[in-house]
Amino acid sequence: MTTHYTTLHVALPHSPYDILIGESLLDRFAAMLPPSLSKSRKFFICDSNTELYARRIAGESPVFSVSAGEQSKSFSVFQDVLSWLLDHQVDRHSLIVAVGGGVVGDLAGFAAASVMRGVPVVQVPTSLLAMVDSSVGGKTGINMPQGKNLVGAFHQPSMVICDLEVLKTLPERELKAGYAEILKYALLGDSAFFDWLETHGQEVLDLNPEAVSYAVKRSCEMKRDIVVADEKETSGRRALLNLGHTFAHAFEAVMGYDGRLLHGEAVAVGMVCAMELSVRKNLMSAQQVERVVQHLSRLGLKAHLKDLRLPADVQAETLLEIMRGDKKAAEGSINFILMRGIGQAFLTGDVAKDDVIQVLTQ
Amino acid sequence: MTTHYTTLHVALPHSPYDILIGESLLDRFAAMLPPSLSKSRKFFICDSNTELYARRIAGESPVFSVSAGEQSKSFSVFQDVLSWLLDHQVDRHSLIVAVGGGVVGDLAGFAAASVMRGVPVVQVPTSLLAMVDSSVGGKTGINMPQGKNLVGAFHQPSMVICDLEVLKTLPERELKAGYAEILKYALLGDSAFFDWLETHGQEVLDLNPEAVSYAVKRSCEMKRDIVVADEKETSGRRALLNLGHTFAHAFEAVMGYDGRLLHGEAVAVGMVCAMELSVRKNLMSAQQVERVVQHLSRLGLKAHLKDLRLPADVQAETLLEIMRGDKKAAEGSINFILMRGIGQAFLTGDVAKDDVIQVLTQ
Repeated sequence: MTTHYTTLHVALPHSPYDILIGESLLDRFAAMLPPSLSKSRKFFICDSNTELYARRIAGESPVFSVSAGEQSKSFSVFQDVLSWLLDHQVDRHSLIVAVGGGVVGDLAGFAAASVMRGVPVVQVPTSLLAMVDSSVGGKTGINMPQGKNLVGAFHQPSMVICDLEVLKTLPERELKAGYAEILKYALLGDSAFFDWLETHGQEVLDLNPEAVSYAVKRSCEMKRDIVVADEKETSGRRALLNLGHTFAHAFEAVMGYDGRLLHGEAVAVGMVCAMELSVRKNLMSAQQVERVVQHLSRLGLKAHLKDLRLPADVQAETLLEIMRGDKKAAEGSINFILMRGIGQAFLTGDVAKDDVIQVLTQ
Repeated sequence: MTTHYTTLHVALPHSPYDILIGESLLDRFAAMLPPSLSKSRKFFICDSNTELYARRIAGESPVFSVSAGEQSKSFSVFQDVLSWLLDHQVDRHSLIVAVGGGVVGDLAGFAAASVMRGVPVVQVPTSLLAMVDSSVGGKTGINMPQGKNLVGAFHQPSMVICDLEVLKTLPERELKAGYAEILKYALLGDSAFFDWLETHGQEVLDLNPEAVSYAVKRSCEMKRDIVVADEKETSGRRALLNLGHTFAHAFEAVMGYDGRLLHGEAVAVGMVCAMELSVRKNLMSAQQVERVVQHLSRLGLKAHLKDLRLPADVQAETLLEIMRGDKKAAEGSINFILMRGIGQAFLTGDVAKDDVIQVLTQ
């Protein structure tokens, strides 16, 4: 069997790795691994939705399956994963393989970062969102009662394997949520990619092989370039990946991570909010925002705050308060990613509270 | 007030830092910090034994005190520390200050490594052992039911401040336990330092300022050089710091970390075991081992397995089994640090099980 795939090399100085994007990659999993890891004892971590994939590639290796859903990114499940690894005599030469969406990738990645003070992890993202976002870049972590992703580690994967065929079993709603993160790359830094998405976006959602392959590749490329420039989020460059996310995290917080609102859905609306804030500050034109809203609507994605159906008692002030507690906040001020136009995002702390309130009450 | 202190620079490429060694440093804590951290919001973590020191330097900053003892290096106390930090709105620009011995340093260091995926930590070691060993080098972690230090991170401190005056309140037994780690540096790589210790060891235990300052400085220097050569313990160089530790961890495991056996006490006996194993393999002379045993005995330190008073039902095979589970084990074989003579340690996996059993049953 011939396997066609694209390799993107992530040239981080201390932990370079490859992202493989293609079809039928899972069937050749062992052969795809870097030679240094192919003989490692392997520990597969997955969730109830991805367990079949994990068992298909795990062979005799042990598999640990957590409940599907954000609630598995908890301190207690983190402890369960660590205990399972230790009970199975994990050692520094072992390899952890995360098979799943963002929750599994973040949880297994943090367990890999922490057990024995760090063992290698290979990410096998099974959702569109995980392929283009969470599996690349080394951010791992769990949620705390105080908020999302508040505890974790930067731990780069040793390889990322995106088998596009697994997307065929992904619910349409999850595909659309993942699409929002693809759109994010276009909006933050590549207006030509946005042009392409306007033409081919529906093909991506229809899983046309060439369209989805290009969209995933271009997204991973952009994330790769940003991560290589600013691995630990210290220069402000990596912060651009948070376009729409300051708003999105607040929306998710008030909805309680119970599945009613997907991360990608929150991000889509968050990006529109960030653009509306940019219009208020005379940074970009309302026409450009309308173009993006049209694009979202045509594909059946949520675009407006009202689409999220937040509880009626949630005030703009409540959302603002949550944003202030977001971990990107520097000494009380809130940083936002704003835009000077499609493809031109930038980080700023210069945002008036009233403007945010206005955007949230429209 | 004039403060005399020595600065050792640890030239790690991505996280260089200074170790300050001197007297009255705590009284000038704020002035000692690197300029980039002096204005950070500070969070002090200590234990019931070191709380007075922590409060003395903390001023208005919040202080979190855990119970003194190894049992605080647990998953649940780790969770408590993280929750406390988050409840007090820690952010990425905050500074965590660990004031205490090895337990506090490892626990607070791992919390600093994990909260917000990593915030800076300054280590203020208050025990001799922490000054010469655990506070330097970036190893942090907690214990799990399956063993010690099985979960953690490499997280280099932004500064280490060793105020030798705090040693005056340290119980004699702890001083002696810390001395074992000083002796370790001499045995693993500096026979001239061992000669110096034979002459000045008692002065170190008597806290003669010049003697203790030299012993701490020389130990930190040696640890610094090893850590800079092999930060993440990948080349085998850093493994030399585990001289005596494969044995020591097994002794500690069967004693249950309840305070009956201090880590340094276990290490002293473990080093003698490593030397006896080296003699069995005709690597060093029995006379050299005797010289070290004499040195330990003269200073009132434990030297022989029988001095540890392990439970009568503990068999050599039990200890060996624990050693096999030690995280430094590569695929079933046990690595030992052996010696070709005083000051000449090396890492090897070439050790017969029977020789280990013989050493443990003598």
